[in-house]
Amino acid sequence: MTMMTYDTPIDAINTDIAADLQHVINNKTKPLGALGTLETIALQVGQIQNTLTPLLNRPAMLVFAGDHGIVEEGVSPYPQAVTAQMVMNFLAGGAAINVFARQHNMALRVIDSGVNAEFQAAEQLTHAKIARGTNNFLHGTAMTLAQCEQALTAGVEIVYQELDAGSNVIGFGEMGIGNTSSASCLMSILCDIAIGDCVGRGTGLDDAGVQHKVAILEKALEYHQLDNSNPIEVLAALGGFEIAMMVGAMIGAAQRKCVLLIDGFIATSALLVAAKIQPTILQYCIFSHCSDEAGHRLMLNHLHVKPLLNLGLRLGEGTGAVLAYPLVQSAVNFLNEMASFAEAGVSEQLNAS
Amino acid sequence: MTMMTYDTPIDAINTDIAADLQHVINNKTKPLGALGTLETIALQVGQIQNTLTPLLNRPAMLVFAGDHGIVEEGVSPYPQAVTAQMVMNFLAGGAAINVFARQHNMALRVIDSGVNAEFQAAEQLTHAKIARGTNNFLHGTAMTLAQCEQALTAGVEIVYQELDAGSNVIGFGEMGIGNTSSASCLMSILCDIAIGDCVGRGTGLDDAGVQHKVAILEKALEYHQLDNSNPIEVLAALGGFEIAMMVGAMIGAAQRKCVLLIDGFIATSALLVAAKIQPTILQYCIFSHCSDEAGHRLMLNHLHVKPLLNLGLRLGEGTGAVLAYPLVQSAVNFLNEMASFAEAGVSEQLNAS
Repeated sequence: MTMMTYDTPIDAINTDIAADLQHVINNKTKPLGALGTLETIALQVGQIQNTLTPLLNRPAMLVFAGDHGIVEEGVSPYPQAVTAQMVMNFLAGGAAINVFARQHNMALRVIDSGVNAEFQAAEQLTHAKIARGTNNFLHGTAMTLAQCEQALTAGVEIVYQELDAGSNVIGFGEMGIGNTSSASCLMSILCDIAIGDCVGRGTGLDDAGVQHKVAILEKALEYHQLDNSNPIEVLAALGGFEIAMMVGAMIGAAQRKCVLLIDGFIATSALLVAAKIQPTILQYCIFSHCSDEAGHRLMLNHLHVKPLLNLGLRLGEGTGAVLAYPLVQSAVNFLNEMASFAEAGVSEQLNAS
Repeated sequence: MTMMTYDTPIDAINTDIAADLQHVINNKTKPLGALGTLETIALQVGQIQNTLTPLLNRPAMLVFAGDHGIVEEGVSPYPQAVTAQMVMNFLAGGAAINVFARQHNMALRVIDSGVNAEFQAAEQLTHAKIARGTNNFLHGTAMTLAQCEQALTAGVEIVYQELDAGSNVIGFGEMGIGNTSSASCLMSILCDIAIGDCVGRGTGLDDAGVQHKVAILEKALEYHQLDNSNPIEVLAALGGFEIAMMVGAMIGAAQRKCVLLIDGFIATSALLVAAKIQPTILQYCIFSHCSDEAGHRLMLNHLHVKPLLNLGLRLGEGTGAVLAYPLVQSAVNFLNEMASFAEAGVSEQLNAS
């Protein structure tokens, strides 16, 4: 039996079916291209599933949680305890991600990737703790390479469990006080953008707080002296356990030809790492929104992708991915359910007949 | 018994409750403002319904259909017969609006405001035909003032039926080959923008087609010599029956304190007229999307409003309003269902405690 790991290759989507899909889309009772971005999504999902009649089954959200040693440096306005408190809030059903996942009937799984607290067993919780928070990456690596590999492998396994339960569309979210600092550093190295342009207010820093965060992260990058040639080394040095596990889970989902719903700044930083390891993953991704965190737009530009929503969200948890999900469902539904010109007896354009 | 008409005043929303609503929003377990535009919507719906716990009941889409004499001038690439054919498609459930309304469990009503065809009775169809299409407004008014009043009154009555059935959120859509020409002219006069900037490709004109359309509409505006001092005169001269009926329905919905979901270019042109008659209506409106029809962004800028979605849609029918509806539901849901910091035992910001 072969074991799938994060370096098991992701197949390219089937572009051979694109012309047939486009023909079906163009013959629906609407002007050519009139459903805009929904047509792009329908074309993508059809190619991912290699069918003219794609279906979205058991949509699921994975929310990875972890703590960060870098918070010792005062980079977040919230205390570290909030990570664990929010995990409890997720398990009690009271967070934004719970509300929106219930609304759209999405399964929700919370993964303790490395929270600095112990949790009792709970139905929606997966215990996959690597350690109780990363090390402070100002003066050393956030995690060892062995821990990083362990997190990547756990991510693959965790997403496979969802796929085995029937899901073919997975949203990726996270919780971790301090994780915008990791995400900003990953972005700076992997996109080759100055750290000052990668840092935003996070959960609510004021101007002085942002200046302090930039100064700390500049020092950390100075210390590590990394380039983008080895993404796993970069991930281990500057990432978080929840980010590393998300990288593995994203790759695993694409290996099994799922639709990936990418959330905001942190989730996109994980995707930057995943795409550096396996660029084909991008063919499976739908970018759910552009967050209000300043660096997120630059990340999306770097990837040459267009997000579905622009709602000024900056909450994380996967909230943007869940909010965008009904649009993906709409794209699939119009492809399957709309009548063609011929079926409905509607005349086409005068100059097209 | 007093009869409500389109000039029965719309009450202002209750801004006294805004501070209490904002307090509830700010105490939810998320950073301040982190739900972006959804927070703005929650605040608006709470003020419209004058409660800290708003609910959206029996969401309904009204799709007004009508034909346009101006199509004689070759302003659309589709034949006029498509209006009636698409009404039949709506009633058979095969159009985009049907697919999306089913997905979001929204009631759908199609109103024959003035289609150039006769329809048999159907459950989702309201017969409210003023005439079989407007007159060609190149050489005279599209309709008489009496017809315009009749359409406005019918619109109020039609929306009241939905409200009596329990709806408190109404989306407005339309179908009518040629109606971007009416919408462009209404926009030009009511926003005081040159007609060239108000004309787009409609359902798919090429460059020569757009030039021809601009030339025709310039001549029409030259003929009518109207300014924005009398919106009903402008509406009668250049509007369509479906647009005029939508104006009445929008005003009626706001009179009864509904949430109004405004669709694209045509629906927003109707709102321009409604807001000229009763500016207070804007307090009740949610702008669902910015369409790919060039003038729509300028209309939204003129109204100083920000649309929820930017998906390059240019289909009409109310599709943008239906696609945006789940976001409005999410705004109401987070307000009602999210835990507060105190309820969840989550720490607030260090500098806020």
